[in-house]
Amino acid sequence: MKATFYEGNKTIRIGECQPVAPKAGEVQIAVSYAGICGTDLHLYLGHMDRRVTFPQTLGHEMSGVVHAVGEGVTHVSVGEPVTVMPLDPCGDCPACHAGHNHICQNLKFLGIETPGAFQSYWTVPAFTVLPLPKGMSMEHGAMIEPLAVACHDVRIGEVKAGEYAVVLGGGPIGTLIALVAREAGAKVLVSEINPYRLELLKELGLETINPKEQDLLAYVQQQTAGAGADVVFEVTSSSVGAEVMTQLPRTRGRIVVVAIFSEPVKVDLFRFFWRELKLAGARVYEREDFDQAIALAASGKLPLDQIITDIYPLEDLEKGLKQMESGGKVMKILLRCSADE
Amino acid sequence: MKATFYEGNKTIRIGECQPVAPKAGEVQIAVSYAGICGTDLHLYLGHMDRRVTFPQTLGHEMSGVVHAVGEGVTHVSVGEPVTVMPLDPCGDCPACHAGHNHICQNLKFLGIETPGAFQSYWTVPAFTVLPLPKGMSMEHGAMIEPLAVACHDVRIGEVKAGEYAVVLGGGPIGTLIALVAREAGAKVLVSEINPYRLELLKELGLETINPKEQDLLAYVQQQTAGAGADVVFEVTSSSVGAEVMTQLPRTRGRIVVVAIFSEPVKVDLFRFFWRELKLAGARVYEREDFDQAIALAASGKLPLDQIITDIYPLEDLEKGLKQMESGGKVMKILLRCSADE
Repeated sequence: MKATFYEGNKTIRIGECQPVAPKAGEVQIAVSYAGICGTDLHLYLGHMDRRVTFPQTLGHEMSGVVHAVGEGVTHVSVGEPVTVMPLDPCGDCPACHAGHNHICQNLKFLGIETPGAFQSYWTVPAFTVLPLPKGMSMEHGAMIEPLAVACHDVRIGEVKAGEYAVVLGGGPIGTLIALVAREAGAKVLVSEINPYRLELLKELGLETINPKEQDLLAYVQQQTAGAGADVVFEVTSSSVGAEVMTQLPRTRGRIVVVAIFSEPVKVDLFRFFWRELKLAGARVYEREDFDQAIALAASGKLPLDQIITDIYPLEDLEKGLKQMESGGKVMKILLRCSADE
Repeated sequence: MKATFYEGNKTIRIGECQPVAPKAGEVQIAVSYAGICGTDLHLYLGHMDRRVTFPQTLGHEMSGVVHAVGEGVTHVSVGEPVTVMPLDPCGDCPACHAGHNHICQNLKFLGIETPGAFQSYWTVPAFTVLPLPKGMSMEHGAMIEPLAVACHDVRIGEVKAGEYAVVLGGGPIGTLIALVAREAGAKVLVSEINPYRLELLKELGLETINPKEQDLLAYVQQQTAGAGADVVFEVTSSSVGAEVMTQLPRTRGRIVVVAIFSEPVKVDLFRFFWRELKLAGARVYEREDFDQAIALAASGKLPLDQIITDIYPLEDLEKGLKQMESGGKVMKILLRCSADE
């Protein structure tokens, strides 16, 4: 079968290898589509090498069809369409004991600490495998994982109907957050500077602002009659984002930090005091977020097709990564992984 | 009557002036004791001059006896012991409309934007005046306001019985937070570097650590079996505090920013993401916090006498401020304000 291997030093090797037969409690999936995540780009650029054993197959956003099941696996059957919730918690750390096993202190993330989905056949622990509803396209199935991230972020942000939400950064996750927040009944503004993404966001019916061309703070003040935003999602990982996020919320407004900041950044803690702001970090998802993502995707309410801007063969993983790195005309790239599907 | 006036440029003038007769809806209080707050020190040092109209009488932590009431005032009577909740909200801004009038966007704080308690007679809006329970000493009455701050902070921190709380900074507010959190059933650790304060905190039965002598992070990890603290109160206003506050909490642990940071500081937002931490700013108090503070002080459970380290005549305001500035052997200083009481 075909597989891709990240070998460090910005190098992806395409190779042939034997599929891994599923052991007891495992499922072997013929991967249909796998999306390239911003985390895969971080990995490719070497930012997370300390978590990787080389060579490593990356990828964790996917859809596929069950190809074989190991002993004791009963909740999915051969031929069934599935996705994977790629978290393998230890079950025995303080976080797991506190019920936060999605952020287990010894978490193995499939596609980082263990092999991922950028290959034709992927063998994973059965408990990570979730059936996809009948009728859902396999392309949409590959969007469930990032959509679950957005569902988690919106849930952590406690977004309520009628609220004013600002999303800083309109990449794939920011866009999905905006769509999920809109489904929750919020009025949503997305702040983004990439013209291609701004155009796409507008096509999705989202209100946008380019903060390089218009005063974001003044606009939010005006739109909220001087109150400020109810909730702000920081999805830019930038020092500017970390600065703006505290300026926009109303008294007791909420900030959700979704972005991964590689370095400490300056934050205006006075503003937290002055307006009694709240900030919450949000990482990956819990099972209920995956369930919500599947239900939302199945509802047909979300314009997922428009977010998928490119579909390439598996061999073009590196091309996709470079396209994302360039920051140009791209939203979500999927890879076709099973040549024989 | 005697009064004190902050004239800017680190200057306090002691003077004589006429008491202000209470108009309709006002109460004139013969001030018994007034505590010097860290905010008064900030004011004295010129950090908040933009909020002050000179000359200004500072002071907002106090107890006193009603001396006269204006027309329409019925909830307190002449001769009654009282304290003041020194907030004068506008009632008509987005924060007030949202029910957050304690952090009103046009808040007037008595003793900053309007004259304060460092004088023999203080005339204030009647709605700010709260009766003190029979039998409470006037010294304790002057501690109600800072105690209400601590009650608010602990409430914002959602401290629950059995939780592990770390207070960074054992000054008057940090110490009161520690005591209120202990009353809420938490196990409390206070991190402080001032030897005098460390000794006093130990006398109050609080567990302490000097992070210059012992590894705070390792100690908290050990005390919580590797989980981390449930809640951390940042009361140091220091960049070190802003760094440590994100290192200590468990997954989904809470941070309360009580301190006033004059400048943005570096904060590890990655840690918020990684552990799904929550941060909340806490400013002043709401009425329920004042009520809780009065009840707690009246219960006799708190060692308030030990926290009051010095009682000076009103004329010694500047001496008290300089003593606090020196950061030496001092916790809470009260001023005797009514010579004739």
